[in-house]
Amino acid sequence: MSRMCISFLMCLLIAGSVHAQEDANMKDTFFVIHSRKSVRNFTDAPVSKIDLDKIVRAGMAAPSAVNMQPWSFVVVTDRKKLDELAAGLPYAKMLFKAGAAIIVCTEPEKAYDQNKDLAVIDASLAGENILLAIEALGLGGVWTAAYPYEDRMKHARTVLRIPQKVIPLNVIPLGVPTGVDKPKDKYKKEKIHWEKW
Amino acid sequence: MSRMCISFLMCLLIAGSVHAQEDANMKDTFFVIHSRKSVRNFTDAPVSKIDLDKIVRAGMAAPSAVNMQPWSFVVVTDRKKLDELAAGLPYAKMLFKAGAAIIVCTEPEKAYDQNKDLAVIDASLAGENILLAIEALGLGGVWTAAYPYEDRMKHARTVLRIPQKVIPLNVIPLGVPTGVDKPKDKYKKEKIHWEKW
Repeated sequence: MSRMCISFLMCLLIAGSVHAQEDANMKDTFFVIHSRKSVRNFTDAPVSKIDLDKIVRAGMAAPSAVNMQPWSFVVVTDRKKLDELAAGLPYAKMLFKAGAAIIVCTEPEKAYDQNKDLAVIDASLAGENILLAIEALGLGGVWTAAYPYEDRMKHARTVLRIPQKVIPLNVIPLGVPTGVDKPKDKYKKEKIHWEKW
Repeated sequence: MSRMCISFLMCLLIAGSVHAQEDANMKDTFFVIHSRKSVRNFTDAPVSKIDLDKIVRAGMAAPSAVNMQPWSFVVVTDRKKLDELAAGLPYAKMLFKAGAAIIVCTEPEKAYDQNKDLAVIDASLAGENILLAIEALGLGGVWTAAYPYEDRMKHARTVLRIPQKVIPLNVIPLGVPTGVDKPKDKYKKEKIHWEKW
């Protein structure tokens, strides 16, 4: 084989490996949207602060009414606090095994027109970005509702010292998935109305 | 150059072009989350039914409380209907230029516990998936609120024959962006509370 051929072969191998690396970090949006699932089973592995920052950053990229961004986020990694949260939240017991939790909060006073509905919607969009970011990083998470349940909001406020005027919308336990939770196909043609209801 | 070299060269070119095609259809999730913007300026180009179906399908992949999926979607491409919608919606005048509109609806009776708040949150998550899907396809759209404004909901219900028990949450005009609308960097460190508020 000539030297030129060997050079080409090496180029091909290098190009291939660079591409493979790019692809490993890159997750197609439609793929992530459709592979996102509610993950309730975690290994004991922690979640890095770098990943948590990326996830919350994705949350803040959501749109909000008149760009008021009424949201805020409490990020918990402390084992004791995660357990305290779990103890008072009947539907968030997976916190006992989660590496972290993100509590998406919203403040009606900071929303457009000080409207509570808009505050809740804005923070919900941030919450969905967070769920997709978790999936995109190969982690898993699940939205457990705090709002509109007074007892759950009260517990989250107490454990995390969240002010009374701030609504803890949800508690998202997250971590490294064990792999048992799978996405559902929820496509239903009858939910689409073309041109009119 | 030997024949073998020429073969290698051809392989390299083919491999490169296949990769380029894959990359063109593939949009990294974090990239899309951060490049999504409210697009209010559209060219006259239409939006294909194939793309609209992909977008609504992404909406239905959102999570919902106890997987009740209380959402539904009205997809409008008819010029006359888009103009009729625009005429009665003061903050959705971009419908006059949009190639299509998606109205995300929700039905409290179908939500978990027949809870209106949960119905609105569930459909909001579907709405965010829709906005991201629009961006991922190289299209543009913007969330214009119908809920919680009675006059706007009434207009959408009248034009699209949406039943009274169904809430038209928003009207999302979409189309091919002219390119003038740009994403905003909304990262604010002070919105993240580590371990407690």
